[in-house]
Order: sequence, then C-alpha cells, then structure tokens
Amino acid sequence: MILLDAMGGDNAPDSIIKGAILALQSENFSSSIGLVGIQDVIEAKLKEFNFDNSESRLKIFHASQVVDMHDSPTSILREKKDSSIIVGLNLHKKGEGDAFISAGSTGAMVASSLIVLGRIKGIDRPAIGVDFPTLSGSSLVLDMGATVDCKPKQLFQFGLMGSIYKSITGNLDTPTIGLLSVGEEDTKGNEMTLKAHEMLKESDLNFIGNVEGKDIPVGGSDVVVCDGFVGNVVLKFAEGMATFVGSVLRDEKSALQKIGAKFDYQTRGGAPLFGINGLSIISHGKSSDIAIMNALINTEKLVKEDFHKKIEENVKKYSDILK
Amino acid sequence: MILLDAMGGDNAPDSIIKGAILALQSENFSSSIGLVGIQDVIEAKLKEFNFDNSESRLKIFHASQVVDMHDSPTSILREKKDSSIIVGLNLHKKGEGDAFISAGSTGAMVASSLIVLGRIKGIDRPAIGVDFPTLSGSSLVLDMGATVDCKPKQLFQFGLMGSIYKSITGNLDTPTIGLLSVGEEDTKGNEMTLKAHEMLKESDLNFIGNVEGKDIPVGGSDVVVCDGFVGNVVLKFAEGMATFVGSVLRDEKSALQKIGAKFDYQTRGGAPLFGINGLSIISHGKSSDIAIMNALINTEKLVKEDFHKKIEENVKKYSDILK
Repeated sequence: MILLDAMGGDNAPDSIIKGAILALQSENFSSSIGLVGIQDVIEAKLKEFNFDNSESRLKIFHASQVVDMHDSPTSILREKKDSSIIVGLNLHKKGEGDAFISAGSTGAMVASSLIVLGRIKGIDRPAIGVDFPTLSGSSLVLDMGATVDCKPKQLFQFGLMGSIYKSITGNLDTPTIGLLSVGEEDTKGNEMTLKAHEMLKESDLNFIGNVEGKDIPVGGSDVVVCDGFVGNVVLKFAEGMATFVGSVLRDEKSALQKIGAKFDYQTRGGAPLFGINGLSIISHGKSSDIAIMNALINTEKLVKEDFHKKIEENVKKYSDILK
Repeated sequence: MILLDAMGGDNAPDSIIKGAILALQSENFSSSIGLVGIQDVIEAKLKEFNFDNSESRLKIFHASQVVDMHDSPTSILREKKDSSIIVGLNLHKKGEGDAFISAGSTGAMVASSLIVLGRIKGIDRPAIGVDFPTLSGSSLVLDMGATVDCKPKQLFQFGLMGSIYKSITGNLDTPTIGLLSVGEEDTKGNEMTLKAHEMLKESDLNFIGNVEGKDIPVGGSDVVVCDGFVGNVVLKFAEGMATFVGSVLRDEKSALQKIGAKFDYQTRGGAPLFGINGLSIISHGKSSDIAIMNALINTEKLVKEDFHKKIEENVKKYSDILK
C-alpha cells in the first residue's frame, strides 16, 4: 500500500484524490492506496467523483489536522501531531504503508521525514532529487534544497543515492554521475566540489567528471550532483525561464505546448527525499491529478525495488572513501 | 580611447574588427578605438573591409602573441607578455586607453586583469557581472565565475559594485539589490548568504532581501548577488536551456527568433570585470560584430562615468560593515 497525503498541495484535496483514482484505474499501477486526511472530506470527494471502491484498493486513514504553508517546518511535530503529514509518515514507519507521498510543504516534509523516519545508516544528510527533462531523456539533479550547506562526502553520498535511483527508474545498469561545477576540467570548481571530485573519482561509481550548468538541459549525465543551494537556485531559475519563455511566446500556442509538455513539473510526479530511512516522496505544491497519478506509479516502482534499503547496502561499500 | 583585443574570441579577428567599424559608424559612439593585435593582420582586414580611417578614430597597437584557450590563465603573464591581452591591459594601465575589451579567454582576462591592473581598494575579489534579460528589462547578476569561493563581505561588495553599475547603465537612481537564495524569507539561505543578508540589510543600499532563481528571468531586482559558483552554473544552465528550447522549437522559426533575440548573449556586449582597478571588459568568446559594437558603446558609458573610481569612493562608506 502506498500512502498519499490527501490534504497537501495547492489543489488538494480534489487533484490528489482524482490522481489516486486515475492511478487505481491505470494498468501501470497495481498497489493499493491509503489516503491520509480528514475522513469526512475524503469520503465526500470520493462520492462526488463517483468512485467505485468495490475492489477495496483504496483505504482512508483519518488525520484531523492540515499542515499549511504558514506552519514552521520544525514546529509541526509538536503542534500538528495529527496532521496528514505526521500521521502518514508514522503509518509508513509502522509498516502500514510502503511509502508516503505528499504535495504539501516541502520544508515540512523534509523536517518531518527526518524526525519520524530518520536517516539511512551511512547517509549524513537528506537530498531532494528532481528529474529534469533533457534533449535525450532526463537527468536526476540532487540536492534541490534539503541541504544548503554541504560537505564533500555528502555530495558523494548524493551521487551514490542518485545512481541507485536512476538504475531503478531508468532501467540503467550503471548510470553516469556528473558533478555540477564551473568547468569540465578536473581542476575547475570550488573547495567543496574539488574534494568531492576526488572522492567520486576514487570510487567504482560511473563518475564521468564535472558537468556544467548547460549539461542539465542538454543532458550530460544521468545523475547531476550539487549542493542544495545551487540545486534550488537552478530549479527555480528553470521555473522562471518557463514563465519567461511562456510570456515571450504568448501568442504561439503550439510552440508553447511543446515546451510546456517538456517542462511542466506537473507531469514529473514526485521527488523522493533521498537519504531518509523510508520512502518519503515530495510532490510539487501545484500538482494536478495527472501529477499525483504519476507520483503513485513511480513510487510503486521504488517500493518494489526496495530503494532505500539498496542505498543502505551500497553506502557501506564506500566507508573507506567516506571516512 | 577604448582599447579592443583584435585577436580574442572564436570569430576573431573578423568580427572584432567589423564590430569596431560598426561602432565608429554608430551615432551612439564617439570615442576612438585602439585595436590591439598583430599589426599586419589588422591592417589587411581593415583593407578587406574597405575601412576609411580618414577621421583617424582608429589606431593599431601591435602585439605579436595571441592567447588561446589552451594557455593556462596564470602562465600568460610569463609566457605571453606580448599577447594582445597583456599589451592591451598594460596600455590601459599606462593611461593610453580608458578601458580594455576582450572576447578572449575569460580565465586569462580575470587573471591578467588582476595582475596588471590590480584590485580596487576596499574590494577583496573580482566579479564578472552579466546582464540577464528579464520580462521587464534586465537584471545584473554577479559574480558569474571569477570568485567561486566567496565570503559574506565579498557578496556585499558585489552588491555595491553592481548597484553602481546599474545606476550608470540603467540610469537608475537607487537600483534594487537582491541576494540570490533558496527562499524569500530572511531566514532562508546557507551560512554565507545568511551573513551577507545581515550586512546588506544593515547598509543604506537599496537591498530588497532574498530573491530566488525564478526572479532572475522574471525580473525581481536590478542587481542579483551570488557567489561565482552559483552564478556560473546559472549562466551556463541558461545557455543550455536556450539550446534545449531551440531544439524543441526547431521548426518554428518565428518563436525561435523571439526567444533568440531575448537570450542571445551576442547582443549583450561585454561583461565588466568588477573590482578591478580599471575597466577590463570580457566579451563572450562567440561574439559577433554586433556584440563587439555593443560592447564598445556600453564601455564608453562606463568610461564617461568613471565606473571603477565610483566603486572605490563608495566602498569606503561601508568600512564599518565590512570590517
């Protein structure tokens, strides 16, 4: 069962619940879904959307509180213990669900996941990974903002986790890992990346060296490693560019649609929180029902492949480098 | 007189010399130009382009060597003392020209400018500033890669220098300064930006607080301050996005042209090296003749307004904050 926060996101609960229904109807999804949130609200919506639960693949878990954007991420565990985020993460921790997806506050998800689920052994800090569309497919960029002050070995850990993720989601044997820097030469970078470069080079990971900002959209490597400050700036810059391009092309619908289809974060589904001892999936606050359906389908794959267990097993191998 | 490196850039010497001729013919440009490079080559090109120097606004300064992309930036001063970059910067230092523009190696320009011209008193590190197109005009983003490891007070200095630049080039009384971070709230950022935020807030600069990546293309502030690592990643990411969008829109010429006109770095002209005790202007390696013309026109404005002197005068004011 995959747990889904029915109350999180700008379009909640409608898009979330519609997305769950779409997933249950999809031939690419076979799990059951646990909707977490205010029971009356969820039941009313299911009725409104004429949902037929005869196969009983959908279950509701009541949570009386809702986290909103004004809540301080660190106060939620104290002040909103019965929120859908905390209830959902606790259900996952107890094994009642195999993963938890939320389109609610990213800060709340990161802080609550860290506290409720904890970190994977051998991983220092969490990371948010987002698959960016590229000309040839997609690149997973991490971290996107969970860890704004990084150490070199944390960048290494991000590379390792990203590699495992892409091997699962992209069916790649040995995903390529690039280190985001200011030039392709080994000697280009800041203090942190120069050291991380050495560590990645020393390992048996498929490290292809430094990549540059341009390689993200063009498609330089399957995984792009950076600290959360840089990743967050790039992610939001891309959103701003989409707004910009959209505005410039206001009158050219077909062109807009082509770009939109590529860049629309709503089609990407959820971004896993890497390094958490569990499957905590962050969806965009503006998630549509399609986005939620995609998040569910992608998460199912991670569940089946034991994503976070694989990280723990793999990180052990590198204890010498990471010491 | 504005000095121009005739030998630097992918399209040198043709585009450089054509750009100089275009500037001399433009009603927006009144200075004379000193072309620095191999005399025979320059003279042959001027003849080829049927240039009429009867007004004598163009002068040639011979430099026998050419810096290429394989030269290590730090070795140029030893091994290529008679290169157009070193000769040009020395001419500027001696006062034979009011500024020096080159579309050659950025690394060579940064290193050579630092050594030949030195830093402005009160400024710790150089920064490259690039004007990004926005929906409402443009934002100067700095640093773009000259200083990849920054201290908070260096970010402050970048903000100050950027503000003076925008007041000159954008005719703004008090340009707004934004600090690039991972959220708009004062509490969002990494260690470096949180401290820089405090310093900027304490000053009388027109600091509007944190801005996010999306604010660069959308247009959040006149100046956007960041370290050279982040800035370089964003700059190259934007170039990669342009390639990406171009490829997606391959068949839609008019849309492409609209975006192209907005994003084409060739129309932007040169990027000044901030913090150098002189006017050292870096043009894109792929500069066209139009780009060179624009660089000359923009540089003339900086010369007339005593840009680098203004920085030195202003930075003194903030000695308490910067101590």
